[in-house]
Amino acid sequence: MGRLRWRVAAAVLPWVLRWLRYGRRRRRLRREVLFFPSQVTCTEALLRAPGAAPSALPDSCPCGLPHGESSLSRLMRALLAARVSLELCLFAFSSPQLGRAVQLLHQRGVRVRVVTDCDYIGPPGSTRSHLVLSAGIQVRHDQDLGYMHHKFAVVDRRVLITGSLNWTTQAIQNNRENVLIMEDDEYVRLFLEEFERIWEEFNPRKYTFFPQKKKSH
Amino acid sequence: MGRLRWRVAAAVLPWVLRWLRYGRRRRRLRREVLFFPSQVTCTEALLRAPGAAPSALPDSCPCGLPHGESSLSRLMRALLAARVSLELCLFAFSSPQLGRAVQLLHQRGVRVRVVTDCDYIGPPGSTRSHLVLSAGIQVRHDQDLGYMHHKFAVVDRRVLITGSLNWTTQAIQNNRENVLIMEDDEYVRLFLEEFERIWEEFNPRKYTFFPQKKKSH
Repeated sequence: MGRLRWRVAAAVLPWVLRWLRYGRRRRRLRREVLFFPSQVTCTEALLRAPGAAPSALPDSCPCGLPHGESSLSRLMRALLAARVSLELCLFAFSSPQLGRAVQLLHQRGVRVRVVTDCDYIGPPGSTRSHLVLSAGIQVRHDQDLGYMHHKFAVVDRRVLITGSLNWTTQAIQNNRENVLIMEDDEYVRLFLEEFERIWEEFNPRKYTFFPQKKKSH
Repeated sequence: MGRLRWRVAAAVLPWVLRWLRYGRRRRRLRREVLFFPSQVTCTEALLRAPGAAPSALPDSCPCGLPHGESSLSRLMRALLAARVSLELCLFAFSSPQLGRAVQLLHQRGVRVRVVTDCDYIGPPGSTRSHLVLSAGIQVRHDQDLGYMHHKFAVVDRRVLITGSLNWTTQAIQNNRENVLIMEDDEYVRLFLEEFERIWEEFNPRKYTFFPQKKKSH
């Protein structure tokens, strides 16, 4: 009987260890839903250079906006957590705050790659132009007749950010939108595969010029 | 020493049982990612009336389209699994197949509620008009100045379907899009709360008429 007990204990121990390990890992995994429109808040504190004095913002910021958390600030925090890589696959990308966050990551040495729809290659001065010309970030454009309508980002090949939100000030401040932030290996893998397919398909070495796009949505 | 072993076994047993239960539950939970554009396939077999002969479709279907699985058919299957309730919160909803699926659910006694953006109240003959006039489904319209840009559904208060896809033929057949299908209590709760907020806000007893919408996106 004593041996049987030992055997039972030996048989269940690996399961218990896996359960404990899974439980710990699960608690750490990030899962968040952001709903928009976002309150308009000051996000300068998130965007300050690493060397800036910690006390400079937000207490002394003269902008007059609230300095609390908002859906936009949470989205920016999720992006700014990147240390190694950031893939962006966005139908539209013109939000100045999100553009600055991406630029900051590039300056910090994060490998940033951006795909947008070719209908949204902005004019000089737009976020897209700014990213390419000022910051030197790699940007490619989906030129298929259909829209590249994704709105997702992958942070450090670990966290997926996806939802209905186009990264524009109009959408952030006015629309009802949702964004999921999920630390999920399986989803990350599938969305990265989709990113790589588009990234390779619109390698500038392969294409010639921008075709006319359909106007229906 | 014998007692100690028993105590250890008694202490780990609840954990093992929880782990086993959790494992089983986890295997059952639905998690799927659909990418679009979807192959154009025949979906008539999914939409046939419950009393129709099982052999009538798809083998004898004369449409000439492939009858295999596609992203659209998987999305329809996820919807048609509804037995009790279906909440739809959609910026645009004009796909005939998805419209028929929703109508079928209503005919089967599923409680269907639809919110769309008021810019997408279609003309007579559109999916929206069809849903309201022919099928008697409850449809409400977000009339805020910003867009109601969500694209989500909740099936039986158990499964969340959400992503970038507007429910239009153009988007389904031509655009690069993603849709997540997730059996996830926490996400379902948050998205249902968002649905109920919008549903109550645009209760027709409360509002007067449709205001002018902004044109920017």
